[in-house]
Amino acid sequence: MTHGEPLLQREDHGPVVRLILNSPQNHNALSVAMIAALSEALDAVAASPARVLIIAARGKAFCAGHDLREIQSARSDADDGRAAHERLFAACAEMMQKLPALPQPVIAEVQGIATAAGCQLVASCDLAVAAEGTRFGVNGVNIGLFCATPMVALSRAIPPRAAFELLVTGDFIDAARAHELGLINRICRPEALADQTMALARQIASKLPEAVRLGKRAFHAQNGMAPPEAYAATGRVICENLTLPATAEGIQAFLEKRPPDWA
Amino acid sequence: MTHGEPLLQREDHGPVVRLILNSPQNHNALSVAMIAALSEALDAVAASPARVLIIAARGKAFCAGHDLREIQSARSDADDGRAAHERLFAACAEMMQKLPALPQPVIAEVQGIATAAGCQLVASCDLAVAAEGTRFGVNGVNIGLFCATPMVALSRAIPPRAAFELLVTGDFIDAARAHELGLINRICRPEALADQTMALARQIASKLPEAVRLGKRAFHAQNGMAPPEAYAATGRVICENLTLPATAEGIQAFLEKRPPDWA
Amino acid sequence: MTHGEPLLQREDHGPVVRLILNSPQNHNALSVAMIAALSEALDAVAASPARVLIIAARGKAFCAGHDLREIQSARSDADDGRAAHERLFAACAEMMQKLPALPQPVIAEVQGIATAAGCQLVASCDLAVAAEGTRFGVNGVNIGLFCATPMVALSRAIPPRAAFELLVTGDFIDAARAHELGLINRICRPEALADQTMALARQIASKLPEAVRLGKRAFHAQNGMAPPEAYAATGRVICENLTLPATAEGIQAFLEKRPPDWA
Repeated sequence: MTHGEPLLQREDHGPVVRLILNSPQNHNALSVAMIAALSEALDAVAASPARVLIIAARGKAFCAGHDLREIQSARSDADDGRAAHERLFAACAEMMQKLPALPQPVIAEVQGIATAAGCQLVASCDLAVAAEGTRFGVNGVNIGLFCATPMVALSRAIPPRAAFELLVTGDFIDAARAHELGLINRICRPEALADQTMALARQIASKLPEAVRLGKRAFHAQNGMAPPEAYAATGRVICENLTLPATAEGIQAFLEKRPPDWA
Repeated sequence: MTHGEPLLQREDHGPVVRLILNSPQNHNALSVAMIAALSEALDAVAASPARVLIIAARGKAFCAGHDLREIQSARSDADDGRAAHERLFAACAEMMQKLPALPQPVIAEVQGIATAAGCQLVASCDLAVAAEGTRFGVNGVNIGLFCATPMVALSRAIPPRAAFELLVTGDFIDAARAHELGLINRICRPEALADQTMALARQIASKLPEAVRLGKRAFHAQNGMAPPEAYAATGRVICENLTLPATAEGIQAFLEKRPPDWA
Repeated sequence: MTHGEPLLQREDHGPVVRLILNSPQNHNALSVAMIAALSEALDAVAASPARVLIIAARGKAFCAGHDLREIQSARSDADDGRAAHERLFAACAEMMQKLPALPQPVIAEVQGIATAAGCQLVASCDLAVAAEGTRFGVNGVNIGLFCATPMVALSRAIPPRAAFELLVTGDFIDAARAHELGLINRICRPEALADQTMALARQIASKLPEAVRLGKRAFHAQNGMAPPEAYAATGRVICENLTLPATAEGIQAFLEKRPPDWA
């Protein structure tokens, strides 16, 4: 962190909020302070009328995971760091789970590397755009620390055997393989990353916000339900969606082959 | 629907039944009547000795989803259409869930576009063959109506983040990407679509029908079970399968390097 | 089995154990004896300090599934083979489930064909390396015996509609498609198969064994849990991992840009 600059920056682009991890000198490590800053910023976005959130990062790396210096320095505590480590991973898991729970869709804007908890952060966002050349891994095993918490998000995003390979080998995959496996949605040239991610965000922001909000909530709610239960839940959602005046207008406009009047 | 023609046509090709959505002028919309016709036809197929079901469609589009005119006209009801909308989506969910519950494997034969509940119909069939150039989407968000019910089938067929992208962007994917993601099984030239789908149906129909039936039922039953429970259930099924005289003959024929006598 | 040779051979390569199915004359069929030999060998590996297990096979085929002659001959029992068949599939399911439960990662080394329960064996290992030209299928339907138990492992490894297609058509897929679908992790030239698999095993064996063990156990334990439960479970695991002296050394070594002293 450059002296005096915040760990996390926020830019507002109309309906799109862009949070920028701003600790390039340590590869945007998810320190206690960074996790707290993210968590607080997510609460603020949740309570705001913003329509889409982008999580981006300053520097050569998107995020290289937890702050290992901080983890080591806690070992000098009276309990050898146990309480500090428990607090750290509880806070991190809580922050990560705020991403699917956020009312707005969240897009990761990824360059360089996304490793360990940094890869978890990508997998915890709803969508991801990555620059060509980005590498993804959950390589904690290389230093003797298995990426146990990152795998919760990763193994729910890509096929299980591909996830296990990354976890036990410490190997990286490139953006093309990450796209093939379903971890990322789009790949672009590095110099176009911010623009392409913003274009995707603006596309989503142009949709009816109430429909996007109830849709995202329903998407995560029905995940893991047996189909009959999922149909009961989503049937209620689509009928609720139909009661919105703006939806009535959207359907009518479509039938009349004109743009909707959603002003 | 051409005057006097039924909404849904049925062709019997030996052991293969082919149902044809026959409302090309509104892109085979899943109206209340079309859903009822499909539901009734599925019950008839379920009770028949047919071995495989194909769901095909007349015209340029496979199916573009619900009938928006019908949805809008219900708004003039005393309750603004609430009861009608609830009945519509309940009937649709019930019909869609009949597809995995059908004793016979079901193949979608898809051309043109399959969008919203039309994409749900493809994803609810057990298998799908698509013509090159077919486009798939769950694009209700474009008119302010999030595809909440279609996502139940779609998000169980393709990776979650790919499903979410389609739902919030309203974008389409082509047949090649749909194949890569696992939504469709085969792609063919448009002029070969009916023949290729029928060839796949006949291939499945050539197998021992009892084995295919108990296998399909077991496939959907074990889905979502924890592995020990799934092994207990499928262990019972494979032992039941072995008690069939035709299976004893099938195995014996294989060991004697001759075709089975299943006449 | 050549006269006097065991059904299953074991080689110890330092920290890597390699079990070799050694019944090439019947395509390494999973007979009662082979299943028992595998089950016993897995128990021995589980109790040993070995770090990685490879399951390989002698001959042109990796494994073509159950022993059909044995299944047929049980039909002369007083109960037409029912009890024998139940014992066979119970023993097989128990053996297959030992693979994810094993403390060590398990790699399938696959050549030729892996069909029916042979494909299940590949899908039950944590990872798989296959020679170019290897074909995979769950083709019991061709002889009237639906691959009900193999689908438990297969349908949890690849997308559901791709699994269903293999089950009802009896068709094979090649190694490239198996890789695309997530069934196998790596493909190599046939003459390099043993070396490439051993290289992967040695790479995993070079990691901190305690971290790999708790990681594998956590991977399978969190599978199928709802995310909050999965984060609670894996949070405990990563904090436990951090209490290992070797992990403290691994992190410190990384921070000091030196190799860890794990002697």
